[in-house]
Amino acid sequence: MTRPSRRFWMDRFRPPQLIALSFAAAILIGTLILESPFTHEPGVRVTLLQALFTATSATCVTGLNVLDPGGTFNRAGEWTLLLLIQLGGLGLLTFGTLFASLRGQRVGVEERLRVAQQVNVTEFASVTRVVRGIFAFTLVSELVGTLLLMWRFVPAEGWGKGTFSALFHSVSAFNNAGFGLYPDNLISFAQDPLVLLTTSALFILGGLGYLVLLSLSLYAAAPRRHPLALNTRIIVWTTLGLIAVGAATVTALEWNNPGTLGPLGTAGKLLSGYYQGVSPRTAGFNSVDYGAMLPGSLFVTMLLMFVGGSPGSTAGGIKTTTFYVLLSSVWASVRGQAENNVFGRRIEFDYVLRASVVAALSLVVVTGGVFLLLVTNPQLPFVNLAFEGFSAFGTVGLSMNTTPQLNVAGQLIVIALMYLGRIGPLTFAIAFAQQGRLGVRYPADKSILIG
Amino acid sequence: MTRPSRRFWMDRFRPPQLIALSFAAAILIGTLILESPFTHEPGVRVTLLQALFTATSATCVTGLNVLDPGGTFNRAGEWTLLLLIQLGGLGLLTFGTLFASLRGQRVGVEERLRVAQQVNVTEFASVTRVVRGIFAFTLVSELVGTLLLMWRFVPAEGWGKGTFSALFHSVSAFNNAGFGLYPDNLISFAQDPLVLLTTSALFILGGLGYLVLLSLSLYAAAPRRHPLALNTRIIVWTTLGLIAVGAATVTALEWNNPGTLGPLGTAGKLLSGYYQGVSPRTAGFNSVDYGAMLPGSLFVTMLLMFVGGSPGSTAGGIKTTTFYVLLSSVWASVRGQAENNVFGRRIEFDYVLRASVVAALSLVVVTGGVFLLLVTNPQLPFVNLAFEGFSAFGTVGLSMNTTPQLNVAGQLIVIALMYLGRIGPLTFAIAFAQQGRLGVRYPADKSILIG
Ligand SMILES: [K+]
Ligand SMILES: [K+]
Repeated sequence: MTRPSRRFWMDRFRPPQLIALSFAAAILIGTLILESPFTHEPGVRVTLLQALFTATSATCVTGLNVLDPGGTFNRAGEWTLLLLIQLGGLGLLTFGTLFASLRGQRVGVEERLRVAQQVNVTEFASVTRVVRGIFAFTLVSELVGTLLLMWRFVPAEGWGKGTFSALFHSVSAFNNAGFGLYPDNLISFAQDPLVLLTTSALFILGGLGYLVLLSLSLYAAAPRRHPLALNTRIIVWTTLGLIAVGAATVTALEWNNPGTLGPLGTAGKLLSGYYQGVSPRTAGFNSVDYGAMLPGSLFVTMLLMFVGGSPGSTAGGIKTTTFYVLLSSVWASVRGQAENNVFGRRIEFDYVLRASVVAALSLVVVTGGVFLLLVTNPQLPFVNLAFEGFSAFGTVGLSMNTTPQLNVAGQLIVIALMYLGRIGPLTFAIAFAQQGRLGVRYPADKSILIG
Repeated sequence: MTRPSRRFWMDRFRPPQLIALSFAAAILIGTLILESPFTHEPGVRVTLLQALFTATSATCVTGLNVLDPGGTFNRAGEWTLLLLIQLGGLGLLTFGTLFASLRGQRVGVEERLRVAQQVNVTEFASVTRVVRGIFAFTLVSELVGTLLLMWRFVPAEGWGKGTFSALFHSVSAFNNAGFGLYPDNLISFAQDPLVLLTTSALFILGGLGYLVLLSLSLYAAAPRRHPLALNTRIIVWTTLGLIAVGAATVTALEWNNPGTLGPLGTAGKLLSGYYQGVSPRTAGFNSVDYGAMLPGSLFVTMLLMFVGGSPGSTAGGIKTTTFYVLLSSVWASVRGQAENNVFGRRIEFDYVLRASVVAALSLVVVTGGVFLLLVTNPQLPFVNLAFEGFSAFGTVGLSMNTTPQLNVAGQLIVIALMYLGRIGPLTFAIAFAQQGRLGVRYPADKSILIG
């Protein structure tokens, strides 16, 4: 028996299939490890479903939990989680660029560009350079984050435990995983600027993505030589806009809520209000109790979770660019303009079409998932299940403390949503749908009445 | 002072503005009449807000109520409601066709087609013929409906009251208004095939629209001479699909629910299950208590309310064609096809773009409305307010008995949603947005990463 070579896998599967299958494989291996007693605290038992759920949540960088990770897993288990998070967070990008560089030599420029686009690597940089850049960016960010967080955790928990805790939360934040080692996630740090600002800086950087930050720093160094691409402008402005809207809304609505910001001082209210306005865009850490939040804040949070972060980053959701392209097209139509021009550039129909398809398919998946959750768990409140579904699909990980109350069917549905949300429903569908060939060109129709 | 001529209005406002303003005028006049004591039962008082809400709900054929119409208004008030419903139901079409025929002679074919498209009249028929056809279709349907319903109401309530009740419910059903004269709407007829099948036949016919039924009957008479347009095929198949899915889901989920279908016999379960699967697509009658429905059925109902009926009909929502074009484009993309071909015809990008814009703008409006309802009425459950918002925007009128519990701000938000839902958010936006002119043609962008 010979070991199958890399080339074997490359020939046998298309990239979307490899992405879907590699994530499934990582989840299964993670499940087996997290199910093994050597990863558990003494006396703790973990069921197969709990292990599967936790492995999926870590690999898909979601952060929903049916059990308390810190109390259930020993150091070996926590290292397993950390590795799964790091694998899952960088997974798509590195796998993708690997394929791209491997296939590029063999199949010519057109295919290379197609594959590169698939994994959200733009044409301007060579694939190898990008992969190296992503790794360096990840390592440096996580290292700086760890050092900053050690400042808080080492004095409280000693060198060994404190350093690991700092590393774990830094990796979890950068990869937008939202996993914490404390039973209440970050609620005990609700007024701690060091922890909240460090983690939010990490997940915002991770959620912008390496290429965006590269463009920004090149532009800062030499604006004329490296003008910002439209993609970067859209990402930066949409991200800033969503952060402002999210933080302002949550802070204003929850200001006097005794279950969330109410008991905090003014600085704490502003800090945690900002944090819960930013965290829904995939990070998933919480410094307040979402079970006590007001309906209006929960609704805004669900919308932010659906939009998510930026393409080519560790974040989930339909992505900031999709959201921006759709809204700007609506705005152009409202103004009666046949073309959608933003920042002095024209957005072509192809992009609008792709944005519509991504958003519509995501809506189909998330509404389907919420429907199944509602049908299988009628004992739980509507809003809890809707929130859970959006959180799982956006790989966010916030919860109104609903996850442990889900029955078996509910947990399996959430597992499926986290997986689909991480792979992206379009990539998943393309991976496994029968690819049709266009034989005939049909005549165009002029009869349809829309809206 | 001379009376302004018709021509004066035509010159001064564009059709979308006239549609928006004429509905506003009808609502204001209706409010004044329904506020006047001569339309009330003896001893009943109606506040200005209640009158405004009821007039809007009737003119926008929604059927949400802050008070019990049958118990509040006397015969004069009920006639007012009936007239507002009939005006609102046919409003867009007849106003639109009027404009089209008036302007047609003056402004040439291109403008005529544009206006005709605006009001959803396709090119194949002359505008005058269509207007006449719509009136005849409406009258005959409502008359037949009245005769059938008299069979039930006259024996129970005598000739005078029974005949009026039959007429009122027939007009309300055909125009997809959902207004009833009984305090529990149609719950007391939950097992009555005559009432439920007659009203549902009326609102399905009204929700298909005259042109679709005309095409179908021409096709039935001479299939070769009058082949079905793609628009008709899409409407018929989508309507059938949504009816089947809605009826099957609600019937299955509610079968044993003691608050809804549970107490009924098997025939009654099937009848009312079917009815509550069909009614959400804009009709808004209810033969069961939505306050007692299970979360899964409520969620499906909300989705059906958002889709609504067909263009060129009395129904609301984003419309069956919009829904179908979006879903078929998703399906084509999933299969990797560059073009979206259905029923042997190609759907052009323009249509997909317009469908995306209509759906996205509708989502923006309905989520904005729900958000405001949640913020202003935190005392009410999340699901009740979400349901109320979707119902108002889709001009459906189903409610989890939430409407009378809304505070003043909540009622004003629902009024705005009903109005925007009836006019259509795109028509409204086009009517009042500053129309930009495209001066420069900007270069196309290739950098955006979607999804
Ligand atoms: K997350
Ligand atoms: K209605």
